[in-house]
Amino acid sequence: MMEIGFIGLGRMGSGMAANLQRAGHSLTVYNRSPGKDTDLVRAGARRADTFGDACRADVVFTMLSDDRALEDVAYGDAGILTRLRAGAVHISSSTISVELAERLAADHAAVGQRFIAAPVFGRPDAAAAARLAVVAAGAPDAIDEVMALLKSIGQRVFIVSETPKIANLVKLSGNFLIASVIEALGEAMVLVSKAGVDKDQYLNILTSTLFDAPVYRTYGSLIAYEKFEPAGFAAPLGHKDIRLALSAAEALMVPLPLASLLHDRFLRLLANGGEGLDWSAIGGLAARDAGLS
Amino acid sequence: MMEIGFIGLGRMGSGMAANLQRAGHSLTVYNRSPGKDTDLVRAGARRADTFGDACRADVVFTMLSDDRALEDVAYGDAGILTRLRAGAVHISSSTISVELAERLAADHAAVGQRFIAAPVFGRPDAAAAARLAVVAAGAPDAIDEVMALLKSIGQRVFIVSETPKIANLVKLSGNFLIASVIEALGEAMVLVSKAGVDKDQYLNILTSTLFDAPVYRTYGSLIAYEKFEPAGFAAPLGHKDIRLALSAAEALMVPLPLASLLHDRFLRLLANGGEGLDWSAIGGLAARDAGLS
Amino acid sequence: MMEIGFIGLGRMGSGMAANLQRAGHSLTVYNRSPGKDTDLVRAGARRADTFGDACRADVVFTMLSDDRALEDVAYGDAGILTRLRAGAVHISSSTISVELAERLAADHAAVGQRFIAAPVFGRPDAAAAARLAVVAAGAPDAIDEVMALLKSIGQRVFIVSETPKIANLVKLSGNFLIASVIEALGEAMVLVSKAGVDKDQYLNILTSTLFDAPVYRTYGSLIAYEKFEPAGFAAPLGHKDIRLALSAAEALMVPLPLASLLHDRFLRLLANGGEGLDWSAIGGLAARDAGLS
Amino acid sequence: MMEIGFIGLGRMGSGMAANLQRAGHSLTVYNRSPGKDTDLVRAGARRADTFGDACRADVVFTMLSDDRALEDVAYGDAGILTRLRAGAVHISSSTISVELAERLAADHAAVGQRFIAAPVFGRPDAAAAARLAVVAAGAPDAIDEVMALLKSIGQRVFIVSETPKIANLVKLSGNFLIASVIEALGEAMVLVSKAGVDKDQYLNILTSTLFDAPVYRTYGSLIAYEKFEPAGFAAPLGHKDIRLALSAAEALMVPLPLASLLHDRFLRLLANGGEGLDWSAIGGLAARDAGLS
Repeated sequence: MMEIGFIGLGRMGSGMAANLQRAGHSLTVYNRSPGKDTDLVRAGARRADTFGDACRADVVFTMLSDDRALEDVAYGDAGILTRLRAGAVHISSSTISVELAERLAADHAAVGQRFIAAPVFGRPDAAAAARLAVVAAGAPDAIDEVMALLKSIGQRVFIVSETPKIANLVKLSGNFLIASVIEALGEAMVLVSKAGVDKDQYLNILTSTLFDAPVYRTYGSLIAYEKFEPAGFAAPLGHKDIRLALSAAEALMVPLPLASLLHDRFLRLLANGGEGLDWSAIGGLAARDAGLS
Repeated sequence: MMEIGFIGLGRMGSGMAANLQRAGHSLTVYNRSPGKDTDLVRAGARRADTFGDACRADVVFTMLSDDRALEDVAYGDAGILTRLRAGAVHISSSTISVELAERLAADHAAVGQRFIAAPVFGRPDAAAAARLAVVAAGAPDAIDEVMALLKSIGQRVFIVSETPKIANLVKLSGNFLIASVIEALGEAMVLVSKAGVDKDQYLNILTSTLFDAPVYRTYGSLIAYEKFEPAGFAAPLGHKDIRLALSAAEALMVPLPLASLLHDRFLRLLANGGEGLDWSAIGGLAARDAGLS
Repeated sequence: MMEIGFIGLGRMGSGMAANLQRAGHSLTVYNRSPGKDTDLVRAGARRADTFGDACRADVVFTMLSDDRALEDVAYGDAGILTRLRAGAVHISSSTISVELAERLAADHAAVGQRFIAAPVFGRPDAAAAARLAVVAAGAPDAIDEVMALLKSIGQRVFIVSETPKIANLVKLSGNFLIASVIEALGEAMVLVSKAGVDKDQYLNILTSTLFDAPVYRTYGSLIAYEKFEPAGFAAPLGHKDIRLALSAAEALMVPLPLASLLHDRFLRLLANGGEGLDWSAIGGLAARDAGLS
Repeated sequence: MMEIGFIGLGRMGSGMAANLQRAGHSLTVYNRSPGKDTDLVRAGARRADTFGDACRADVVFTMLSDDRALEDVAYGDAGILTRLRAGAVHISSSTISVELAERLAADHAAVGQRFIAAPVFGRPDAAAAARLAVVAAGAPDAIDEVMALLKSIGQRVFIVSETPKIANLVKLSGNFLIASVIEALGEAMVLVSKAGVDKDQYLNILTSTLFDAPVYRTYGSLIAYEKFEPAGFAAPLGHKDIRLALSAAEALMVPLPLASLLHDRFLRLLANGGEGLDWSAIGGLAARDAGLS
């Protein structure tokens, strides 16, 4: 059993931490805003007063909303880089930029710590049910040591590279693919529904044939009923991920015209009061362009 | 049992006709180029010398490559409109324009015939195995009469409207969605593979998680290995379908920016020698833009 | 001096006809809706009761709003093709499709008439002042015969080809370039004005430096003040021209991504109540996307 | 007369410095690579050994290629922020990011120096001839003090704001407008030339009518003859400017679809060996997409 620090107990992190706990590990947990750790503490986790306190561990997980949040806990006097013992492992499951992953890998190595990027696919219910897909990258020895942990949070674990940032790139590309589905469904649905086709039946045709996949069912339904609130995954996060994908693409010299289109959709949504909506709300813009809704 | 004429014995049509035959119906078959009807005739079908000959039937199916091919057999002295008896049904399974479907519906009605649009989703192997998805639209009485026929060629039959052209619109929107998947996969794959990720593993990650659908498996594999020959569905047909979707969208006043992007991709592919390739070859353009391949 | 028929006395045509009259030619004029010919008749023109009547002439000009309007006067029993004498010339100044220009060229040739495409650049005030730019194409002998006429309506006459439709293509490409300026200015202006820059000063900077051209002055001012009414050139006509440019590009296998973007802008404008606005109103969409206005 | 330091003697900076010298000011000049200051020194300028040496002045001009180059001379022990005396003025004429301009304004203010952003429009010949357009922003008192200097390098001086970064935004928006012209011309030219129109004549038609502006003449000719070498303004700089415009637009929440299209064009050009070409080479991509060249 391992000593694990877990920083970031949002809707995703709390489910992941609970599954690590269930697997028998000893947890020290931290969340910036209070009240998120009640269930974990009741089940035996230690509550850290600061994120630095969560670093007295073999492994520290971080599951935070963006680059800045992770930088805040990684750097500085009380940060992970300062507090984690040499040889220990930082597993970053946040969806962050490729650049930050690269910087963290170098900075951890410089002080003798190990860094694994292990972003996940799946929404909060999948996190709670340990049914996430984990995409991990890092040094093989470090991966080996924590493989059991990764397996306890995910249904599937994919090791994609020895270079951590590659896992982040794969994660960003995946969110780009999902956003592409949202845009495509938004356009297709307004096309057929403006001609009188029932959206529900249309979605049923799609998902019972070629598009029989969770992503079409989930997002198709949100778009068909314009159920953009409450946000399962908020539009500003979707925007951020497309921006990070484009930024990584820029560094790799890869033009992505569809990602550019999606980026403009998100920016338009956010500039028009959409910051509180689910990211699938970009799938509602096609309807507005067509003079509907 | 019904007397059925079947015009168009290409890779899709021949499978569909065989399944109608297997269901016990009496077939008269016609194909412009010879030699496609051997198996059907051996199994008892009558060979029509002209497409007009195939119209002495209760129901005539047409499964042709585009508007022009269908117009050629529908209009003129020997055409379906002239030769089919009053009350008989023309079932058009071709992927044609919404405009032509509308015109055919009116012209058939004017001479007392009935017209059903019943385009299908599925590639030739699905046609042979009677596992197509049939999207049909037309007058309820006509649909009722031929429902058994539609069921004998498809695994699922969806009735979407009483107005035939609506089925064609749904079909075109479906092909737009598939082309969107091709473009998105093409972009995502070049992004991760330029960074060193193995395309095969990447595809495996996608299709074992959120994108567990036939369309991602089929096209992901074609793009990953750049297997654009031989063409399962040729690029000029894909181009045609996006063009028809945009044309229908124009008539409905629905801007489709992603479809516009796809249209430009197809045009570029065709202008650069791609007319013999599979339509998934537009998924290879992102790699060229990134300086690869 | 020549006998000239002039069909289409809208804001452009009436100015052009007046200049032909001023040059000393004998005019017979026709307009579908009455009251447009008062000044011309007062100055000596003969009023034709039908457009067929306007064809007893050496040369017939047509200046109409679109393909359909021109087809209406060209074809049919009373149409130009029927009524014009062999050897006479039809000069089409309308902005029509390349396809219709090609068809008219063939149909006129078949009955021994000559066809020149001579679309013009310039707005109504330029037409009235004989300051249009005329882009003409047709058989050299026909062009030679009517050159004096073209010079009396335009400041500059450019002969671009012996094939009439090429002049139409050049005209469509020009309108595409103007629409590009509108879109670019719309985007640039919202970018700087959302940061607090005065639009008027901004426009002054542009037009007193690199962008010292009529098109930037005219459209920059319309966009800066959102003066989209009354329409100098209506949005549906702008939409039509971009559609015709894309259609010509399709036939030539030329992808035009910027034209596709413009097309989607026009469709969105028209689907949202913009049919009565000036075509420069697409330059206002960027502001809406940015949450302004 | 003022003591002026001038850092950055590239093709633009050397012309600007010469004009300041001609106006009677006393110059100390610095350039990273040697040999660019010969003419200036011969005419009386002092050669600085380091950029820090160039800061013993009333005013320091910087004219450098990008953010990094300017950061290198502004920050650090020998940097402008350290070496310039309180009250002196730093005039930044480089095309830099809005973010860096904002940071420099704050950092200069913190040490009692004054900062003016004064980017310029015009190519090297205009810099040599003192015919630049200067777009300046900064505190009014500072602007007043240096107005004579700005007038000695430019034909026109526009004061757009009291906030320096706004001038940089205006400059970036201007380069976006120029790139839009390049793309539009590239598309239009391939459309008409694939149909057989002479590119030279086409350009003549455009520039003698609505598009009678320097930018159309300059870039139209480069595109028509595919004269993309030597680079007057290199593609990586054009790419950088569109990237900075998009970055500023992101911060202001302004979607710019045309800028996104241009960005993808530049990335494609650079990923395919175009880093040594003039930025107008993006205007050649439309021809490649159409299967030409």
